[in-house]
Amino acid sequence: MRASSLSRQRGVALAFALLTALAGCAHAQPDAQPATQAGAQAADPLPSWNDGPAKQAIVAFVKATTDESSPKFVPPSERIATFDQDGTLWVSHPMYAQVMYCLDRVPAVVKAKPELAKVEPFKTVLSGNREKIAKLSMKDLEKILAATLTGMSVDDFHTQVKEWLETARDPRWKRPYTDLTYLPMQEVLSYLRASGYKTYIVTGGGQDFVRVYAERVYGIPPEQVVGTMGGTKYGYAKDGKPFLTKEPKLLLNDNNGGKPEGIHLMIGRRPHIAFGNSPGDQQMLEYTTAGDGARLAMLVLHDDPKREYAYGPAQGLPDTKVGTFPQALYDEATRQGWVVIRMKDDWKRIFSFEP
Amino acid sequence: MRASSLSRQRGVALAFALLTALAGCAHAQPDAQPATQAGAQAADPLPSWNDGPAKQAIVAFVKATTDESSPKFVPPSERIATFDQDGTLWVSHPMYAQVMYCLDRVPAVVKAKPELAKVEPFKTVLSGNREKIAKLSMKDLEKILAATLTGMSVDDFHTQVKEWLETARDPRWKRPYTDLTYLPMQEVLSYLRASGYKTYIVTGGGQDFVRVYAERVYGIPPEQVVGTMGGTKYGYAKDGKPFLTKEPKLLLNDNNGGKPEGIHLMIGRRPHIAFGNSPGDQQMLEYTTAGDGARLAMLVLHDDPKREYAYGPAQGLPDTKVGTFPQALYDEATRQGWVVIRMKDDWKRIFSFEP
Repeated sequence: MRASSLSRQRGVALAFALLTALAGCAHAQPDAQPATQAGAQAADPLPSWNDGPAKQAIVAFVKATTDESSPKFVPPSERIATFDQDGTLWVSHPMYAQVMYCLDRVPAVVKAKPELAKVEPFKTVLSGNREKIAKLSMKDLEKILAATLTGMSVDDFHTQVKEWLETARDPRWKRPYTDLTYLPMQEVLSYLRASGYKTYIVTGGGQDFVRVYAERVYGIPPEQVVGTMGGTKYGYAKDGKPFLTKEPKLLLNDNNGGKPEGIHLMIGRRPHIAFGNSPGDQQMLEYTTAGDGARLAMLVLHDDPKREYAYGPAQGLPDTKVGTFPQALYDEATRQGWVVIRMKDDWKRIFSFEP
Repeated sequence: MRASSLSRQRGVALAFALLTALAGCAHAQPDAQPATQAGAQAADPLPSWNDGPAKQAIVAFVKATTDESSPKFVPPSERIATFDQDGTLWVSHPMYAQVMYCLDRVPAVVKAKPELAKVEPFKTVLSGNREKIAKLSMKDLEKILAATLTGMSVDDFHTQVKEWLETARDPRWKRPYTDLTYLPMQEVLSYLRASGYKTYIVTGGGQDFVRVYAERVYGIPPEQVVGTMGGTKYGYAKDGKPFLTKEPKLLLNDNNGGKPEGIHLMIGRRPHIAFGNSPGDQQMLEYTTAGDGARLAMLVLHDDPKREYAYGPAQGLPDTKVGTFPQALYDEATRQGWVVIRMKDDWKRIFSFEP
C-alpha cells in the first residue's frame, strides 16, 4: 500500500513487529509432545482453563445471556462475539505471521519483476541480512506490503497465502503458523458458538489474508472475518471472464477506533463479548461494554515466558513495543471492569500439540 | 456526501429517480384487499409463482445444489444467495424509498439548523414545489444526501429512519414502503434459507438505511446487508461514552462493478445464485455465473403496468431511465443464459396485501 494510504499507526505497528523480530529469532526448541486429552470435555466446556476469575467470568456470562429467565438474557440474533487475532487467538510474538509472509513473498515478486532485484527495499530483503532488514524504514516496509499484498487477483492472492501457510514454519516451534492458536481460546470460540453466539475475528491484520485460513483453523467463515480492508477493482480477463484485483487502496485500518468502525461496517451490531490483548483493541472493548445489558470484555496478558512469551509492560513485563500490554491499558481494564486473562495462571494448556 | 466523494454514477441514478418521480405521483388507487392463502404452502415452496421457466429454474437449482448425490451439489458453507433490493425485492418505481426519506428529512434538518431555510437546495425542498424540486441539480441533490444521511450518530440515524418508516406512505398504495416487497421474492428468500442458503441483500442503497428494516421485513440480519457504504468515525460523548458518527466519506459505491467488490469485501465468497433487475446488477450476475459449478442468475422484468409498473425498455417497455432494464441487458441475459422473471406471467400474486 502506498505511504499515503497506509495509516501511520498500522505502519508503526508493523515496523515495530519487524524491528523487534527480525534480529533475534533464536528461541528454545519446543518440547514437542503429542496432543492428549481429547475426551472429558463433555461436562466442562473449557477444559484447558484453570478454575479462576477469567474462566468463571466467561461461564457466568454465557449462562446469564442464554438463560431465558435471566434479566441478562440476550436474544440469539444479538449474540455477537468478537476476537482480536494476533496475540489473542494465536501467537504474534516476536513477529506477526503476515509480516513474515510479506518478506517471504519478496523473491516471487522479484522473479516476476526482475528489475526489482536491484531496487531497495527488495535488494535488502533478498540479501537475507536480518540486521539490515530490521533497519528498513517505514516507507520501505510499505513498499514491501504493497508489492506482496496488492496488484494480483483475489484468487491468486488466496492461492499464494495458502501455499505459504503449508510450507512456512514458525522459528521457535518449527510448526505451521496455523498450529500456534491458543487451545483455551479455541475452546471459548466453540463454547460461544454452541451457546448460539456468532463468532467474529476483528483483526488489525489483512482481512483477505486471515480469511484464507480462518474457517479451517478457527471454524470462522470468511464473512465473519473483519480486518484491515483494501479496495478491489472489478475487471475482465482477456477471455472475458470477470475477476477482482487487489488495489493499493486502504478502505479501513482495523485498529483502535477502526475496530468499532469495522464492526459497524461489517456486522452492524454491537458485540456482547469481546477479546483483545493490546491497545489496538481498547476501543473495541470500550464499544462493547458501553452497550446495554450483559457485556463482557477480556484481555489476554502474555505473562508466561516458558510456555509462550512474557511481554508487557503491565505488571512489570518487558516492553517489546509490539502488540504490547502497557500499564495504562491494565489500569483502564481495572477501571472498566474488564477481565484480564493471565496465560500463566489461567491456561492449563496453551497449544493442542503440547500437553 | 460531498460532490467529490459521491460517485457520479450513483448520483445520476438518484437524480433520475428524483426527476422522473417527483412531478407525477398520481396513480390509480389500489384495490386494497386482505391477504389470503396462508396455508397450502407445505408442498409448494413458491405458491405465488405461476409454473413457468423462472419458477422451474429456481426449483431445479435448489434441488440440484442441495442433493448430495447431484454433481451440482454445493456444500452448505458455500451456499450464498445475493439479492439486489430496489426493483428486485420491493417497488423502486417511480422513486427509491431512500430518496423519499432524504427529502422528507429536510424539515428536521432545517429545524436543527434554521439558517439552512434560506439556503438552496433546502429552500426549494421546503417549498414543496415538485416541479422545482425535480429540477434540482446533481450538486444540490448531493447536498441533501449529505445533510440527511451523515453527520449524526449511527444510533440517531437508525432512530430517524425507523420513525420515518412508521409514518411514511407510498403515494400509490398508501401503505408503508416496507409493505411493498414482492411476495414471490419473499418466498424465494424463505425457500433458499430453508435449503441452507445464506441470503444477502446487495443493494445500491445505503447499507445503514436498509439495515434498519431488513431483518423485520426480509428476515435478513444487518450483517447480511451489503450496500453503498459510508465511513464512520469513532469518538466520545461528553460523558465519555463512545459512539460512531456517520461521515460524508464514501467507502464503496455498491453499484455495477461495486457489487462484486462489495460482495468480496463483506462476504468473501462468490454467490451461487443472484437476483437483479437493472444494469447496476449486471456485474454481480456476471461474477456469480463466472464461478465453477451450479450458478444461477435471474433478472426481474417489470412488465406489469396494472399490478405494478411496466418500464424497460427491454421488450419495448417505456424507458424511464431509473432502475431500467435496457434491451442491451436483455440481450446479455439471453447470451449468458440468465433467466428473466416476467412479473406479469411469472407472478401469481405480487403483494401480500393483494389477492
